[in-house]
Amino acid sequence: MFNPSTDKKVAIFLADGCEEIEALTVVDLLYRAGIPCVKVSVGETPVVCSSHNVTVTADTTVSHLSWDEYDMLILPGGMPGTLNLKACKPLTDAVLRFRKEGKPLAAICAAPSVLAELGILKGVRATCNPSVETALTENGAELVRENAVTADRIITSRGMGTAIPFGLAIVAYYLGQETADDLGRNIIYYP
Amino acid sequence: MFNPSTDKKVAIFLADGCEEIEALTVVDLLYRAGIPCVKVSVGETPVVCSSHNVTVTADTTVSHLSWDEYDMLILPGGMPGTLNLKACKPLTDAVLRFRKEGKPLAAICAAPSVLAELGILKGVRATCNPSVETALTENGAELVRENAVTADRIITSRGMGTAIPFGLAIVAYYLGQETADDLGRNIIYYP
Repeated sequence: MFNPSTDKKVAIFLADGCEEIEALTVVDLLYRAGIPCVKVSVGETPVVCSSHNVTVTADTTVSHLSWDEYDMLILPGGMPGTLNLKACKPLTDAVLRFRKEGKPLAAICAAPSVLAELGILKGVRATCNPSVETALTENGAELVRENAVTADRIITSRGMGTAIPFGLAIVAYYLGQETADDLGRNIIYYP
Repeated sequence: MFNPSTDKKVAIFLADGCEEIEALTVVDLLYRAGIPCVKVSVGETPVVCSSHNVTVTADTTVSHLSWDEYDMLILPGGMPGTLNLKACKPLTDAVLRFRKEGKPLAAICAAPSVLAELGILKGVRATCNPSVETALTENGAELVRENAVTADRIITSRGMGTAIPFGLAIVAYYLGQETADDLGRNIIYYP
């Protein structure tokens, strides 16, 4: 049973070839924390096939999304999922608009490169997958190698193995560090 | 692209109300490791809805499964997913048969209780979610609290936050610890 803990809503974007664990770990943790999270396919239908051949049905598609209802846009990584996110003009337009409006953004693994190439990470402390570090440094990000980084309203993380710290950082952003720490213990990520 | 590294095949069982990250983290890691893993719905159709409202389409259903083709059966946890696995007679029959034949089994979170209640964990070193520990101790398991335990051809783990150690333990079972450790570093779970 979903028990909302905030009136903020977030949207996470699923593309064919996305890394399903990077996406769904966030969905799972936000559900547990009571943060409404809508799964949005960037394709023409809600059905997406992940980079490891997992078929997931999203809640809606980008063409049906009421963008202004959402507080944060979340981009999972994976290949070619990240390229499919990058190629989705309605999404990259919204990312730029959200940034201009001071709304938070989050990206993990290869997806921080999408933010970097839009010019959004200039001067921002951020992390990403080792495979796309040059995309960040060439676009002026202050690259660090940490599991999850929250800076200047942007949350970034490194890969499938850091999806839980990434999700917990989003929980901490909305509900505070203590709530995130409790959740981390509850799922037996922390002892 | 899936590159098989073994001729052994494993089956993972998805039920309505299963914990999607416990299930799909295994699918993800086995895919990366080249271990063929078939997703099997215990329902009448391949479509299942997880405990956090994620709709996943499995590869097949229990009624269409050629059980003898598989080397290991894997049970994810979650509620009421675990109860739905327990209520699936073709699955529990197969679990008992696999055990008798000396084939490996794996279960995480609440699902080790299914093995315990079938009498399979008697005298076996095993772990599980704190919520079902009495099911293990009352059925003679040697309960330990570790992220993942491999003993007597049974792999067990504790919860959503230990899904990666669980998946890596299955990889280690088939391909050795070094391969599992390399994969753990590759996904940035280990530094």
